[in-house]
Amino acid sequence: MVTALRDLVRHGGRTTWVCAASTDEDHAAAAEGPFESNDVVADRTCTVRMLSIEPNAHHDFYAVIANPLLWFIQHYLWDHACAPDITSREIDAWNNGYVEVNRRFADAVIETASAVPSGSIVMVHDYHFYLVPKLVRDAGLDVFLHFFVHIPWPQPDSWRILPAALREQIMEGLLGSDIVAFHTERYVRNFLLSCQELLGLSVDFERGVVHYGEREVAVRFYPISVDTSTLLELADTPEASRHEEALARERREHLVLRVDRTDPSKNIVRGFRAYERMLELHPELHERVTFLALLQPSRQDVPQYVAYVDDINRAVDHVNERFGTDEWQPVDLRFGDNLPLAVAAYRLFDVLMVNAVFDGMNLVSKEAIVVNARDGVLALSENTGAYEELGAVAVTLSPFDIDQQAHAIYEALTMPLEERRIRRQAGVEIVRHNSVQKWLDRQLDDVDTALQARM
Amino acid sequence: MVTALRDLVRHGGRTTWVCAASTDEDHAAAAEGPFESNDVVADRTCTVRMLSIEPNAHHDFYAVIANPLLWFIQHYLWDHACAPDITSREIDAWNNGYVEVNRRFADAVIETASAVPSGSIVMVHDYHFYLVPKLVRDAGLDVFLHFFVHIPWPQPDSWRILPAALREQIMEGLLGSDIVAFHTERYVRNFLLSCQELLGLSVDFERGVVHYGEREVAVRFYPISVDTSTLLELADTPEASRHEEALARERREHLVLRVDRTDPSKNIVRGFRAYERMLELHPELHERVTFLALLQPSRQDVPQYVAYVDDINRAVDHVNERFGTDEWQPVDLRFGDNLPLAVAAYRLFDVLMVNAVFDGMNLVSKEAIVVNARDGVLALSENTGAYEELGAVAVTLSPFDIDQQAHAIYEALTMPLEERRIRRQAGVEIVRHNSVQKWLDRQLDDVDTALQARM
Repeated sequence: MVTALRDLVRHGGRTTWVCAASTDEDHAAAAEGPFESNDVVADRTCTVRMLSIEPNAHHDFYAVIANPLLWFIQHYLWDHACAPDITSREIDAWNNGYVEVNRRFADAVIETASAVPSGSIVMVHDYHFYLVPKLVRDAGLDVFLHFFVHIPWPQPDSWRILPAALREQIMEGLLGSDIVAFHTERYVRNFLLSCQELLGLSVDFERGVVHYGEREVAVRFYPISVDTSTLLELADTPEASRHEEALARERREHLVLRVDRTDPSKNIVRGFRAYERMLELHPELHERVTFLALLQPSRQDVPQYVAYVDDINRAVDHVNERFGTDEWQPVDLRFGDNLPLAVAAYRLFDVLMVNAVFDGMNLVSKEAIVVNARDGVLALSENTGAYEELGAVAVTLSPFDIDQQAHAIYEALTMPLEERRIRRQAGVEIVRHNSVQKWLDRQLDDVDTALQARM
Repeated sequence: MVTALRDLVRHGGRTTWVCAASTDEDHAAAAEGPFESNDVVADRTCTVRMLSIEPNAHHDFYAVIANPLLWFIQHYLWDHACAPDITSREIDAWNNGYVEVNRRFADAVIETASAVPSGSIVMVHDYHFYLVPKLVRDAGLDVFLHFFVHIPWPQPDSWRILPAALREQIMEGLLGSDIVAFHTERYVRNFLLSCQELLGLSVDFERGVVHYGEREVAVRFYPISVDTSTLLELADTPEASRHEEALARERREHLVLRVDRTDPSKNIVRGFRAYERMLELHPELHERVTFLALLQPSRQDVPQYVAYVDDINRAVDHVNERFGTDEWQPVDLRFGDNLPLAVAAYRLFDVLMVNAVFDGMNLVSKEAIVVNARDGVLALSENTGAYEELGAVAVTLSPFDIDQQAHAIYEALTMPLEERRIRRQAGVEIVRHNSVQKWLDRQLDDVDTALQARM
């Protein structure tokens, strides 16, 4: 996402980036006030306004509300009969964490925007900041408010987990925007349905509009993409090449790959179960295939994520104990966050497994197909945002169905080379065509059109 | 539901009831072929056609597919990151259980319907038989196919748990009907959304119509109700009166009641947690209130249901150990299936707790408010079908929010008597007005209208 936003800064006039301090240096810098930086983009500077958020408030904001409460709601991950329990703890975290941090960001935006020319654009990104647009709008500034949601927008019933007051604050916070943007048409539709059902608003599905008070809020989709040239450059660096050589030496005839954060939405455990099932059904593949799983430990301050890493380890141990030999480990599991290694693996896979339960977009599928040098096959969950673009060239995965996934992975591994080639080339074309530049340009075009209509 | 259907048989001409044998006597009777019975209704007979389903097929049909797979999907009860795993076991159960039993029922309906006059009505009830309408229609008989779904119809994403082939069979099975009926407007909408999203069909939300091939399938809602006179008669029987006297002797100043099957959708554990929270916040209520929970063990052939009973016991033990005294048990938990006892408890409650996570209708709320003799207050989950009718007279429960439920129960317990009276009277009016007779008449009127339009 930062890659994509980098282009945004390149694109336009003067930019101020409001963000939270995370390291000690950040906090020290934040204390000094806004500063100019060209860290973000090489060829021009932007002003960075870093906010020091008090650690308890940040924890409540991030590790109680945003992840897991909102993330789980938006990915349909709650086990409704048992969790979540909304208690005074969560309500306090909402007020003292989420609301407080949103207010801090809104204040910083308001202060910055008070000094900018009329028609300036405020862009707010993602589920951490749903309340910001309304707070900024209520300040009465003449700015254009643009919000991008990078994760799925679920169908309205999922929001019923939250007490009405909270879900209404979220919806009304977002409706402070002039444009609310998502990755896919499906999320646009779900958002419009939510406005109808949860707020009783009138919406126009054809035009993608919510009638909200005196205003029309536009709801649009722009599928995000990847920066293909940067990726290909990275794949050619010495570091990536060293990884590639090592992986090529270690590999067997077939390489299945997954690259994911250890997030329950990624469906990592069922992926190993499906691979195990394939090995059970196809003993002829024993010793001839490896499943390389490059997993970045994620959100280890959230209990559900800690437990999920345990589940992953157990599932891998199970497959390796069941089918492994002295010479061969069926699964090669590596935890870490190593982009050169991931890109090297992208080059070499025969099948990329993306079996997410639900996933807003899934950029791994786009990155991997562009970099791959073996006409590897994409095995893609029908519940990813990327499926709207890449479903036609992928082998479809039904994410809850272990046997279906086993059969699909087998089908992908044994697909004739010519078909692999045709599919991958078509996939690369789609990713190149729907470029990250286009993602950004289309958004800015829509902003321009809306601003002109105002005059 | 059987009470409601009883009226159906009273209503019309000649009726054949196709059902599954359950007891040994049933199976013996089934072997003899169809028989006349007036067990169902006192004043006329109907033909009963009982089917002997082979036990393995019945188990697969009932304890693997219908409950829990479909029930959990329709009540949003799956913990998506972990369950369900669709494996060859589930696919076999689908084919050899659900499809097989649906085929058996369809065959029996076809055989029966081959001998009936043109324009006869085939009514099919509930989520066990989604495939029957298409199977019957494909036989080319001149009958009117009516289907009633008694549980929630979820928003389309919940169906994505099933592989596409299965969910499409379900939808297309149902669309074999002339009318598909639900309890609430919300489920009608969700069904129409599902037809759009999962089958790509054109629908008309205004008219409640799915365009399916050459036909229009009507989608309607008819909120089911209870037979108030039968209930009131039952409450006056000696057996109920004995229970009532005993409960009245044992009761404290305030009585909170719940009557439920031990189903995870009923949200029983969070109910006890909310009650515990209320006792924590209001020590002045200690020794002055009892939570009487009359729970019918349910579906103990399904592992999730066995585990849920354990969770319930643990939650109750926890409250009773924490706050109980030698003289007072805060929760009086009774397992069993005793309608006279339930009706006696209906008379006596001050607050009825219905905090279901999601619930198709919830007839307990309707029964209890009619029978109650203390101007008891209904505390009702916003996610029940009954909430569309009774929400305005109830105290609203937000089913995931423990603290909100604690406050709401307290509010209900301490509500001024005059307000209690006004609310209950209005509630009784609503239930009497939306009677079970009306439920049935409206359905039959719609069938008549549709049949006349055919001529």
